[in-house]
Amino acid sequence: MSAPASAPTLLVLDADPLPRLGSLTGRARIEHADATTLAERLPSADVLLVWDFASTAVRDAWPGEGPRPRWVHTASAGVDHLMCPELAASETVVTNARGVFDQPIAEYVAALVLTMAKDLPRTWELQQQKTWRHRESQRVTGSRACVVGSGPIGRAIVGTLKALGITTALVGRRSRTGIHGPEDLDRLMARADWVIAAAPLTEQTYGMFDARRFGMMQPSARFINIGRGPLVDEDALVEALSKRWIAGAALDVFEDEPLPPDSPLWQVPGLIVSPHMSGDTVGWRDELGTQFVELYGRWEAGRSLPNVVDKQRGYVPGH
Amino acid sequence: MSAPASAPTLLVLDADPLPRLGSLTGRARIEHADATTLAERLPSADVLLVWDFASTAVRDAWPGEGPRPRWVHTASAGVDHLMCPELAASETVVTNARGVFDQPIAEYVAALVLTMAKDLPRTWELQQQKTWRHRESQRVTGSRACVVGSGPIGRAIVGTLKALGITTALVGRRSRTGIHGPEDLDRLMARADWVIAAAPLTEQTYGMFDARRFGMMQPSARFINIGRGPLVDEDALVEALSKRWIAGAALDVFEDEPLPPDSPLWQVPGLIVSPHMSGDTVGWRDELGTQFVELYGRWEAGRSLPNVVDKQRGYVPGH
Repeated sequence: MSAPASAPTLLVLDADPLPRLGSLTGRARIEHADATTLAERLPSADVLLVWDFASTAVRDAWPGEGPRPRWVHTASAGVDHLMCPELAASETVVTNARGVFDQPIAEYVAALVLTMAKDLPRTWELQQQKTWRHRESQRVTGSRACVVGSGPIGRAIVGTLKALGITTALVGRRSRTGIHGPEDLDRLMARADWVIAAAPLTEQTYGMFDARRFGMMQPSARFINIGRGPLVDEDALVEALSKRWIAGAALDVFEDEPLPPDSPLWQVPGLIVSPHMSGDTVGWRDELGTQFVELYGRWEAGRSLPNVVDKQRGYVPGH
Repeated sequence: MSAPASAPTLLVLDADPLPRLGSLTGRARIEHADATTLAERLPSADVLLVWDFASTAVRDAWPGEGPRPRWVHTASAGVDHLMCPELAASETVVTNARGVFDQPIAEYVAALVLTMAKDLPRTWELQQQKTWRHRESQRVTGSRACVVGSGPIGRAIVGTLKALGITTALVGRRSRTGIHGPEDLDRLMARADWVIAAAPLTEQTYGMFDARRFGMMQPSARFINIGRGPLVDEDALVEALSKRWIAGAALDVFEDEPLPPDSPLWQVPGLIVSPHMSGDTVGWRDELGTQFVELYGRWEAGRSLPNVVDKQRGYVPGH
């Protein structure tokens, strides 16, 4: 490493590629770890960059012996994969990639909403069968969406759906101006045409979309999850679809990722399965790298960091 | 018929269903025709309602002998299927369904744009193969669209794409405020990410999207046609897709409709085929019926009609 001995040690939980990190040359001694070496290298690190955002290695390695990094940054919006009681109780500051995924995910949700309204999956199927079958489709203008999760992603989704003429309600952890509290959720879900899960995964949100709530939805309504898999009781969703409690669903996130080939979810009629890609538009890794380099500059200058996660709550608190 | 003998004869070129027409009971002697009987019944009709908007029976029957209806209304935006020189030269007023399809078609175009940007067709394919394969998708915010056709449908498309953060250029028959003339088309197509055909089918627009113009587009760009099939040289589009001159296309309209099962268009890689349904959202026939009944009320009261087609140009002229 070409950094002076006094430079902080930046430990990177690796995944390829690593754009922009080279710009820290001389300002950090960059070391690398994977799930097998993380525990042993943690004590010598000043900063930990969780670049492999799908890994649960931090949660596993953190409770061990020795000093711990003063700052952990994860290249993801959610922190559920890395949080553990020991990290939550520590002095370590945790930051996330707040902001990078908002607009891409909002567009992805709009794509799913319009795709389902215009019956494009069926159009595909018929095209493969070389069959011309005219159907009536749905207007999204004037329909109602309930977006659950009032962070930047949920708010970006609301902005994009509103731009399409959809009436939106945003549900957060507590009621405040423009945001409904959890006490309104049942009522809002019952009249929504689109229910969109965009909440962080916390003790409060785990399994919140269950049989009771799917049973409450309109039979013409659809459910979309771009948050975290365990927000949803997957068995209950499959039942809701097969019993026609709801008209359709799209999942971009799952309890088990990657979804195993033998998962029954691949072939549930009315269910769209995508591989956790809603926020990942061309250049996303570059944006994540740029964001981290910017935060690193603030950190080495002793300035306050943005995007600081409330480790008890499991997300960056809003206003 | 329960209408008085003095009531005008309204001849309907039939298609099922016929919502709202019952409300003219007593105000019109409603008669019905199909392609085989239209020629014989035309001379006794005061008004012709072309409810079967896919039929070319009017074009075939109109040049015959005898009096002709004073007013022809078609339950469609385009009039290409019914116009013939004899009708164009006549005193008969032709009106269309201007307004009914604008917003639904704009949503449909947005659905296609987002579907292609987010690679949903491939997501489908991979789901059928039970394969988890993460890909990067495209942001539509900041991309560029060139919408060809400056009528209400083209303008609604521009409004919806703008709401999604897409930079749009609208091309019409002549340059005026906010609308480019045909002289700008090549330049705009060459830098567009999305080229959308929403023009009426006229002598000027027939085959306008040809090999030369597809060859001008960016290799990453996509082409969408929701106007009329013959705007596009279909063979040239297939060639442009197979040679990767462009990245993808979606056709909702075709030279031959319904597209025959043996058409090669069904299985061109990168081409989405849908059965002329972009404007047909739930309730569309009801809206078309309501619109005709309203126009009929104006006509019987001797008031001027909206949506009057310029029969030489082949569409309702704008400002």
